[in-house]
Amino acid sequence: MSRVGVAMLGYRFMGNAHSRALAAARQLGAALEPELVSLSGRDAEAVEEARARLGWAEATTDWREQVADDRVHLFVNGGPNALHAEPSIAAARAGKHVLCEKPLALSADEAKTMWRAAEDAGVVHATGFNYRFVPAVRLARELVRSVELGDIVHFRARYLQSWGWDAPPADWHFDPAIAGTGAIGDLGTHVIDLARYLVGEIRSVGATVRTFVPGRRVDDSFVATIEFETGAVGTLEASRLARGRINHNAFELNGTKGSVAFDQERMNELQISDGGAFRTVLEHGDWWPPGHIVGWGDTFIYEYLHLLRAIAGEGTVAPHGASFEDGYRCALVCDAVLRSSESGRKEEL
Amino acid sequence: MSRVGVAMLGYRFMGNAHSRALAAARQLGAALEPELVSLSGRDAEAVEEARARLGWAEATTDWREQVADDRVHLFVNGGPNALHAEPSIAAARAGKHVLCEKPLALSADEAKTMWRAAEDAGVVHATGFNYRFVPAVRLARELVRSVELGDIVHFRARYLQSWGWDAPPADWHFDPAIAGTGAIGDLGTHVIDLARYLVGEIRSVGATVRTFVPGRRVDDSFVATIEFETGAVGTLEASRLARGRINHNAFELNGTKGSVAFDQERMNELQISDGGAFRTVLEHGDWWPPGHIVGWGDTFIYEYLHLLRAIAGEGTVAPHGASFEDGYRCALVCDAVLRSSESGRKEEL
Amino acid sequence: MSRVGVAMLGYRFMGNAHSRALAAARQLGAALEPELVSLSGRDAEAVEEARARLGWAEATTDWREQVADDRVHLFVNGGPNALHAEPSIAAARAGKHVLCEKPLALSADEAKTMWRAAEDAGVVHATGFNYRFVPAVRLARELVRSVELGDIVHFRARYLQSWGWDAPPADWHFDPAIAGTGAIGDLGTHVIDLARYLVGEIRSVGATVRTFVPGRRVDDSFVATIEFETGAVGTLEASRLARGRINHNAFELNGTKGSVAFDQERMNELQISDGGAFRTVLEHGDWWPPGHIVGWGDTFIYEYLHLLRAIAGEGTVAPHGASFEDGYRCALVCDAVLRSSESGRKEEL
Amino acid sequence: MSRVGVAMLGYRFMGNAHSRALAAARQLGAALEPELVSLSGRDAEAVEEARARLGWAEATTDWREQVADDRVHLFVNGGPNALHAEPSIAAARAGKHVLCEKPLALSADEAKTMWRAAEDAGVVHATGFNYRFVPAVRLARELVRSVELGDIVHFRARYLQSWGWDAPPADWHFDPAIAGTGAIGDLGTHVIDLARYLVGEIRSVGATVRTFVPGRRVDDSFVATIEFETGAVGTLEASRLARGRINHNAFELNGTKGSVAFDQERMNELQISDGGAFRTVLEHGDWWPPGHIVGWGDTFIYEYLHLLRAIAGEGTVAPHGASFEDGYRCALVCDAVLRSSESGRKEEL
Repeated sequence: MSRVGVAMLGYRFMGNAHSRALAAARQLGAALEPELVSLSGRDAEAVEEARARLGWAEATTDWREQVADDRVHLFVNGGPNALHAEPSIAAARAGKHVLCEKPLALSADEAKTMWRAAEDAGVVHATGFNYRFVPAVRLARELVRSVELGDIVHFRARYLQSWGWDAPPADWHFDPAIAGTGAIGDLGTHVIDLARYLVGEIRSVGATVRTFVPGRRVDDSFVATIEFETGAVGTLEASRLARGRINHNAFELNGTKGSVAFDQERMNELQISDGGAFRTVLEHGDWWPPGHIVGWGDTFIYEYLHLLRAIAGEGTVAPHGASFEDGYRCALVCDAVLRSSESGRKEEL
Repeated sequence: MSRVGVAMLGYRFMGNAHSRALAAARQLGAALEPELVSLSGRDAEAVEEARARLGWAEATTDWREQVADDRVHLFVNGGPNALHAEPSIAAARAGKHVLCEKPLALSADEAKTMWRAAEDAGVVHATGFNYRFVPAVRLARELVRSVELGDIVHFRARYLQSWGWDAPPADWHFDPAIAGTGAIGDLGTHVIDLARYLVGEIRSVGATVRTFVPGRRVDDSFVATIEFETGAVGTLEASRLARGRINHNAFELNGTKGSVAFDQERMNELQISDGGAFRTVLEHGDWWPPGHIVGWGDTFIYEYLHLLRAIAGEGTVAPHGASFEDGYRCALVCDAVLRSSESGRKEEL
Repeated sequence: MSRVGVAMLGYRFMGNAHSRALAAARQLGAALEPELVSLSGRDAEAVEEARARLGWAEATTDWREQVADDRVHLFVNGGPNALHAEPSIAAARAGKHVLCEKPLALSADEAKTMWRAAEDAGVVHATGFNYRFVPAVRLARELVRSVELGDIVHFRARYLQSWGWDAPPADWHFDPAIAGTGAIGDLGTHVIDLARYLVGEIRSVGATVRTFVPGRRVDDSFVATIEFETGAVGTLEASRLARGRINHNAFELNGTKGSVAFDQERMNELQISDGGAFRTVLEHGDWWPPGHIVGWGDTFIYEYLHLLRAIAGEGTVAPHGASFEDGYRCALVCDAVLRSSESGRKEEL
Repeated sequence: MSRVGVAMLGYRFMGNAHSRALAAARQLGAALEPELVSLSGRDAEAVEEARARLGWAEATTDWREQVADDRVHLFVNGGPNALHAEPSIAAARAGKHVLCEKPLALSADEAKTMWRAAEDAGVVHATGFNYRFVPAVRLARELVRSVELGDIVHFRARYLQSWGWDAPPADWHFDPAIAGTGAIGDLGTHVIDLARYLVGEIRSVGATVRTFVPGRRVDDSFVATIEFETGAVGTLEASRLARGRINHNAFELNGTKGSVAFDQERMNELQISDGGAFRTVLEHGDWWPPGHIVGWGDTFIYEYLHLLRAIAGEGTVAPHGASFEDGYRCALVCDAVLRSSESGRKEEL
């Protein structure tokens, strides 16, 4: 098995998730063996603590060192949103493959620049839409594509959390200079990406964006209707202010022949109707015996197994995984959500 | 107990539901004892069969006879939508109290005329939004009004059925001359009414209306975002084309302190969050011991117990029940849904 | 439609349930039209109040008058358990058809005497196991009998409530002279009857009966393993001390080809597996459109529609309904539960 | 961080689960750093393939080499049941700490010998009851011990799977020489261990064991009633023949003040009643943000974090983890299940 040197920017939540997945990927027969070369972040002490615990060889406070490092073949960007574009572009231009967390950028324009840079550099590029790698979500897509559900007419999705009520105002998620948007970029991008992944390109959006918490400088929530290029219609919603909802990333799609419904909090289950009553299918992946369910962290393992195959030349990131193009097209929808809320009109994409 | 003479137009689905409820109301201590005076419909033979079975004293093919009948104090209009306005107005002008099924009228203008006529006549008037009388829905409203949930920020509701795919084209529900609209009037009015009942007046609507079945002359579905006068935002949806969904009339509302969620298919359950995890409360009404659940037909009994109290001078139809004003205000939203779908803009009410 | 004169003993919980069902049965095309002749109970004032409200022609404090009344063709015994045998036997001997609530008697011996008396008198006899008339339970039986599930190997059922913790000690349910047993007769009989209805005769029982509440003179709960004559095995349980459980009458059965699962609190749903994933089927009966669910009270309407057909000579009470023989065979199992708990052995029936 | 050399017997299902957990433990701050010294199994080629993939330094076909290896401090026995006793005892006598999969042994006598050997050797010993390490199960135990639920009166548990119908007869699970028992040892031990973990010692068992599949030489299922030393009563059941059930390891316990209910297929959820309605609590552990759920494989990581703390001298395996004593006491109950099924009597422990 060939090795692929990895460098990562970001050592907290995403640092943990990616590091654990990289360590596990090898045991699950990854196409390439990831070698954890270096971890970066601004707080030298904290990065060093994370490096030692998570198994990275070196720590640094300068992502430019990582981008310039010949041992590095894959650059993973798990930093704050405002730090997605520059390091990712630099890495691509240095010939590194790049996996960047979502939202890919602070705007569609910025995302397009990233996509172009990666394409021009000829590197493998991926956006971290990990919910595509939930086994039950993948099953949903297979059912759609196998025409078992017929033509899709409706899609409805919502991503609801509640921590926005009680979070400290200084949380970086509420700083537009770092996060860009609020619920739109953090949660909305996931449901937009799932809409595109499962149904297809979105043609128009009619949205209302709202900030409810006094003093908050980013959006708390949005609601939207969407039209797909196929003619299907749907609703999208994201909020950090839905009391009682913890990580409720849920969708349902209805076709001319059948339907599926999913909720991330029960991520091993897919509700499937072939026209009649819904049945609850346990779809837990291929590691354990039936019914021995996988967890949220496992989606990152599937993501890396997929990405490492693409880097090894076995297939491509898209269409099952999300490329920078997917990150860009998602950002187009986010921009349309904001535009529509301003204009009071449906906005075409 | 005083008696109230009742005449009903309509003898099929709604005829069954209302007749059973009227018979049961007496046993549950109704304020007035309903006397089933006459039943009307266009098919003499079928009306007579229904009359004998359902316990009405007389059958007729002319609702004008009912409206002119001195023995009649309450006129119940369960006829097709296109036959809501004229008989209801005539009954009111003849001094009869009126309960008319939903949608109240084919347009907001027509509904306003009905409301005005009933007000001018000084009679008790009610629109048949029976889901207000589901015990769990009433509990939801009590929680909203008792400020246990705080200020409401989000409301989302959908009413999904699937029979629209396989129904015969000749079904009256698809004839605009009889039904007016499709999913909007049939299903959408229920979710619009619940939005108003639970949260308050709707200020604007951004909607997309769709007909998917070739040759169909009414809408199959719509999706909408709404803004309430309170500042809350939400999504509404109705469809007859959601495979696997039978009678999925479901809503969720989130407040600054808590949330509730409801699904008509489990109509004895209310999901309640006081900020933390949802608990499943069985709210089955007051007839049976705890956990001995009520059914859909029982909502009509509650509706009549409430209406008969209002006729007896004990309280008013609104705000717990729906008056003609509620039927009218709901129709305003339906009209805005259609307008917005045409204009591509949010429409103010 | 011919008429059948009905007299009822009992005017509280069961009086309400039966009276409402009798009134509704006519509107649903009952084979015979029930005429509510007389209602009896010990408290003259309370009986008169109930009579007037529930629509009975006369009230009496002496059930012997009812049994001797020529206008009465059907005697309904909804009195306390200790008053099941004597009036029911007297009614049968007087040529009245008899519907007696469960548990049929205080012991299997007493139940057998009742059964024999009814058979000797040649009258129609029924035990009030109303859960047989839940549409979803009937569907479960049809699936069993149609061999869609194959041979049944497992049956597990529990009937859990929680009111036993907080109920006043003077409640008649805790008085062995009136109630006989506690959870066994009240709740256990339902799960035993469903076991027999769905799987077949029980061959042996190994049980532990427990009273937890100090001073209580009847059982609070029992647990049991059972063997069926077919070779299937199962567990049965009943308790009034299961905090959080309101009316949790639930069963599951597994066959060589498939399974079904049911919970009375969601009585319109049947979980069905044809070997693979369970699907949730809404089975709400035949009165309303799909998904418009029925309630607990509606089971009594189905029970009367069935009984009135049997009285009219259209079919028999068993096997779909429960006859006195079923009440007796259920009592045999109850007796075996008590014997086994004493002996520490599996008891054969 | 000090290192602890690990050797493992078994390289298939359990080999995968343990190897992944050992690799992950370090990243989660384990008290000692596990070093994967050697992996053993009978098929040299297959062991070598697993070794390379799972990250072990050496492969061997002789567990005796592992037991004699000075670099090894912890011996993990994930071999077939018949190979639990001898290697585990040898390892303990060689001074190795031992983690042995469940069922600990083929009989209570054998288990007792293992327990005694480990105790005499003074090593840390653990039985692989990984469901104790499900975060929601641990929360259940905390609620029990904090007396929030009051005194427990009822416990009911079942572990249902369905693969027993279609499995090839040659599967080792059906060979008594290798597996010992069937559903009892494989599934029943888990529910017995959870009963002991959550409620306490079992005093008596009344059970029926059944083999339904023709030609099968081990049990397919058992049903049992149990009495605890505390006076609580319960039911236990395990089956490999429950169509539609995949990995349904579920329990409920009811106390004088509250209840909890759990199902392994939704292992991040605990249903909690404080006397009133059940609420669904997401309890996913402490790695990810709320609602980002863990999977079945993660229970092994928690198990190792706990065991490595015990080996490091920080606390003991019991009572949160299962020691060999727990494996032995569980085996006593298994033996009583078999005895009771033979005798037809409740068997005391």
